[in-house]
Amino acid sequence: MLESELYPLLSQSGFQIPRFRRFALNEPIALDFYPVALKVESPKIIHKSDIGGVSLSLSDNDALETARTQMVNRIAEHGIVLDPQDGFIATAMIQGEELFAGVVDDPIFGQIILFGKGGVLLELYRDVCYIDIHADEAEIIRALHTTKISKLFEGFRGSKPMTAEIVKFIQILQRFIKTHPNIRECDLNPVIFNAHGLHVVDARIDYHKTLPDNTPVTRHRNNFFDNRTVAVIGASTDPNKVGYAIARNALSFSGKLYLVNQKGGSFDGHPLLSSLDDINDTIDTAVITIPSHRVLETIEALIPKGVKNLIIVSAGFKEIGDTQSEERLSTLAQQHNLNIIGPNCLGYFEAKHSLNLTFGSPNIHKGSLALIAQSGAVLSSLMDKATQEGIGFSHILSAGNMADMNFADIIAMLTDSPECEAISLYAEGIRDGKAFLNSLRNCPKPIRVYKAGKSPQARKAAFSHTGNLSGDYPMFQGLLESVGVKIVDSLEALLYPRSFDNIAIITNAGGPGTILTDCIIERGAKLYTLTVRDIDALNAVLPSNWSNNNPIDIIGDAQSERFEAALRCVDAIEAIEMIYLLITPQMMTDTLNIVRLLEYPWKKPIYPILLGGAMMSDALSYLRKHTKPCFTTLHEASAFL
Amino acid sequence: MLESELYPLLSQSGFQIPRFRRFALNEPIALDFYPVALKVESPKIIHKSDIGGVSLSLSDNDALETARTQMVNRIAEHGIVLDPQDGFIATAMIQGEELFAGVVDDPIFGQIILFGKGGVLLELYRDVCYIDIHADEAEIIRALHTTKISKLFEGFRGSKPMTAEIVKFIQILQRFIKTHPNIRECDLNPVIFNAHGLHVVDARIDYHKTLPDNTPVTRHRNNFFDNRTVAVIGASTDPNKVGYAIARNALSFSGKLYLVNQKGGSFDGHPLLSSLDDINDTIDTAVITIPSHRVLETIEALIPKGVKNLIIVSAGFKEIGDTQSEERLSTLAQQHNLNIIGPNCLGYFEAKHSLNLTFGSPNIHKGSLALIAQSGAVLSSLMDKATQEGIGFSHILSAGNMADMNFADIIAMLTDSPECEAISLYAEGIRDGKAFLNSLRNCPKPIRVYKAGKSPQARKAAFSHTGNLSGDYPMFQGLLESVGVKIVDSLEALLYPRSFDNIAIITNAGGPGTILTDCIIERGAKLYTLTVRDIDALNAVLPSNWSNNNPIDIIGDAQSERFEAALRCVDAIEAIEMIYLLITPQMMTDTLNIVRLLEYPWKKPIYPILLGGAMMSDALSYLRKHTKPCFTTLHEASAFL
Repeated sequence: MLESELYPLLSQSGFQIPRFRRFALNEPIALDFYPVALKVESPKIIHKSDIGGVSLSLSDNDALETARTQMVNRIAEHGIVLDPQDGFIATAMIQGEELFAGVVDDPIFGQIILFGKGGVLLELYRDVCYIDIHADEAEIIRALHTTKISKLFEGFRGSKPMTAEIVKFIQILQRFIKTHPNIRECDLNPVIFNAHGLHVVDARIDYHKTLPDNTPVTRHRNNFFDNRTVAVIGASTDPNKVGYAIARNALSFSGKLYLVNQKGGSFDGHPLLSSLDDINDTIDTAVITIPSHRVLETIEALIPKGVKNLIIVSAGFKEIGDTQSEERLSTLAQQHNLNIIGPNCLGYFEAKHSLNLTFGSPNIHKGSLALIAQSGAVLSSLMDKATQEGIGFSHILSAGNMADMNFADIIAMLTDSPECEAISLYAEGIRDGKAFLNSLRNCPKPIRVYKAGKSPQARKAAFSHTGNLSGDYPMFQGLLESVGVKIVDSLEALLYPRSFDNIAIITNAGGPGTILTDCIIERGAKLYTLTVRDIDALNAVLPSNWSNNNPIDIIGDAQSERFEAALRCVDAIEAIEMIYLLITPQMMTDTLNIVRLLEYPWKKPIYPILLGGAMMSDALSYLRKHTKPCFTTLHEASAFL
Repeated sequence: MLESELYPLLSQSGFQIPRFRRFALNEPIALDFYPVALKVESPKIIHKSDIGGVSLSLSDNDALETARTQMVNRIAEHGIVLDPQDGFIATAMIQGEELFAGVVDDPIFGQIILFGKGGVLLELYRDVCYIDIHADEAEIIRALHTTKISKLFEGFRGSKPMTAEIVKFIQILQRFIKTHPNIRECDLNPVIFNAHGLHVVDARIDYHKTLPDNTPVTRHRNNFFDNRTVAVIGASTDPNKVGYAIARNALSFSGKLYLVNQKGGSFDGHPLLSSLDDINDTIDTAVITIPSHRVLETIEALIPKGVKNLIIVSAGFKEIGDTQSEERLSTLAQQHNLNIIGPNCLGYFEAKHSLNLTFGSPNIHKGSLALIAQSGAVLSSLMDKATQEGIGFSHILSAGNMADMNFADIIAMLTDSPECEAISLYAEGIRDGKAFLNSLRNCPKPIRVYKAGKSPQARKAAFSHTGNLSGDYPMFQGLLESVGVKIVDSLEALLYPRSFDNIAIITNAGGPGTILTDCIIERGAKLYTLTVRDIDALNAVLPSNWSNNNPIDIIGDAQSERFEAALRCVDAIEAIEMIYLLITPQMMTDTLNIVRLLEYPWKKPIYPILLGGAMMSDALSYLRKHTKPCFTTLHEASAFL
């Protein structure tokens, strides 16, 4: 589209544009506004600057006339013959900061707005944010805050705050996209920012030839958590088989359980039914762990039993190239309104009914955190760590290939579960980003996400692994942050859903206390500032050379008695939310006795950090044995903040 | 200084400046070069823009005349009366990218150049680098590379590479500073960058009233490593005392050892001498662990014994406010050419003579890494970890208060030691940054540094801890990187001095393999790309569904036999430098057998990563027992790359 066609379109859509005027090829050229830029307009010429088709800072009619003459000559030198319908456009030059606004039709997230610093620095600093076309004002502002350039809009150096103007501009762009749903790519570049707002100075729009079909499939799903009758299809007595581990874990179920194996026999005193026909009952939920070629027929046999939920552990679908069977699964789910988890997954755990349908740890602690993971290995590692550290779950969901239920469906389900108070998600690739964003937007619970595949190399690995597109990491991060999700940068941070402020550090080591302070501040959390009263209370129990400051350095010769005295004082300070007990192996340190202090029923959460090695091993073993969290590096200790 | 006085100064010093002309207050105003900026010049007016004392983009004599008239009026409205010697300066306006160059006289590093993106974005992006005035060309280029804006100089989007011009500019600035050693602060702002080079458009220079005395004290030190006779002053039989631990550790010394305690008696069969007079021998090195009030007199008594090296473990000097005694230590060191480590330190270890004068671990492994730390607690934690993981040291130095030997002295010493192949340093605050930089510059060995005190809060903690200034972190990081030091972001990375490229990952877990790939790429290291031949070799021993790619995912059901087969293939690939063995707790995983594979004499370094918890504990215990490195998080596993 030519600039002279574009400007009216932009102006009608609500954007501020510069004054402009179009001139036909040989029309007398004169204006009553200056300074201006003059550009050639021809469908033949895409990159105007490259052939000398742009002249800037023209200040009067003489300069304009000269610029046109020279421009015509330069174009001719490039061997381009202008047609009679070609011409020139003169636009008023506007001073200000060069910004960039754009739209991409992302394969995962659909139409997304990019906004940030423009010009040559766009490429150097990549200081842009990502805004969904459905984002409301709060979401837009959260997205803007992820850029550094946004400080410029917030009353920088005493200038007028302009955030409202920026939001208005983004909203105009959102409406523009909604009325042009076939935009494939659009660059408003540059957008000039000054005290009068934002001015779109140039634009380029690419359209899809045909309108992509983005009609969302809405489906009223059955309640996944309504599990009264459960069947394990493929329960095995061979301890080396997945079907053994699942059957063993399933035995703790508080509802009715059927174990099925075509060979019959018994499992730990429970009959192994050789056929589904032996079950004279409806089946709410079935977990399937038989070879993949028998999965579809088994599901068809389960449908008459009223099955609503299926957890397909069996592998051998899309991940090995069998997309046909996987599509059939998806079709079955839609036809019979089934909730299918998997295939190729580790299973499902639900605390409420003691329902452990995973082949992971049999000793899952109950709690209020729902953990969703796209990788079975990541899930089993986290479950194993959680078992060791006493971290409990309301739900564990191994998403697998997501033939039917994807992250959006799972998060929507968990949003309605009263047992789940927080959600942690490990994602590799996602599909239908708009639905995903929407489910996150509608969930009021704290959500943490770890996304694998930041580097192109890792994306390659993830692709070979899950067969899903892994997407552009900064876009993923930006969009999720704009809907209020916390992106974490370590797997382990998924196990600690709570953030803390007003943290206290009690330590026998100044140096590590300083480093932990750095770690806390870097995470955006903050240390509690001791009041005069707090210091008095600590003075009463600590040697005079303690740090008189938080980190509360109680000096290298501190033993458990002094740690206990400090802990009692600090635990009593109302405003403190959490306490780190940072212990280093100094000569006198009785580390085991210090960590035993955690047996007391303290008011605050206390996280011990054992910084060392051999000299810490007894204390570490003690904490492991008593399933208490314990960190051994300062990074690990602060990664979840 | 007025701009019209400054420009000639800058021009004479070699800087490109814009054309300019000064006009007296009522002089007729006209020029033969345009466009120009007009600015008022008066010692009364510091912030010209604030009172309307700047007019930009003036294109002819009429505009210039009008601008001056309006400017005079605006200044009068602000109540400022211009004096007869005041005037105006007109400067040619230069188009280009706005950069910034500056000089600060930093309390730690002395005169340092700052260079980077200028204008309003200087504050937003802080994209600046730090260059020492003594930096050579290579150092300048390394510093420039730490900025994003430097891409603009390297042939960005096909433009002419200009790095040589930038280096020349920095060198002009270095010479300028050397001829103006009393510069306290200088801003060349803006510096306009375009195809014709760099143009200093405005400048502000502040001078010290008196020239600071920066004459470096050069001292020819004795060789610290020449330790044949060692005395422990304060050897104690009380196991709760530091003097006990040091004496116990010192017993392994291969040279001549004297234990001194004024009470006399014996220590583990060795006599405790009650007085220094009982030693009829010269003493090369003494470690002192007696109460601080007796330290100075003891040193004076040691001097006649020919002592050269002192390790003062005793605390109670500057860190508790006794600067006088600490200064006395320093004076003694200078007068008698003593090498003093400490006071307030954990001691000294030297592998060559089995000399362990620390009160840390008695089981320090011998190796080729020198570890220096300013915090005793950090040092004891790292030593304990190293003991557990079988990491060996050539030297361990606890720097303490650095009354005499500072980091620069220690690094200079280690530069000359054939036993030391790499240096790791934990620093809180430093003094005499120029000498520090110089020692780093002159050391050809790989050096890693962890610096505490990134946040203001942590700097406060560090200050109360060591009594040293902690300095500006980005400057510290930038300057050290410019002299080729690797700044690490975790303490543990100090124990692994070697970086690796061409890394292989063997794993039973696709998801964690992807994440580890991300971690490796983020660190700037790279994964080895498998050749067709490598893939063929692996195909011969792995199931068909292995990843056919590095990370080498040998599938979740892998047991130790398959890990071994994969390891044999990968260990044989010449180009691979290091192998991660990434193990997750899947159903069939025999983790203990897998880590036992490390007993074989593999050609490459192999680092196991045990990602999980309870199910990994046997294997972890095995590795700990056999003093092998082992990581339990992906961050930890990759932090040293």
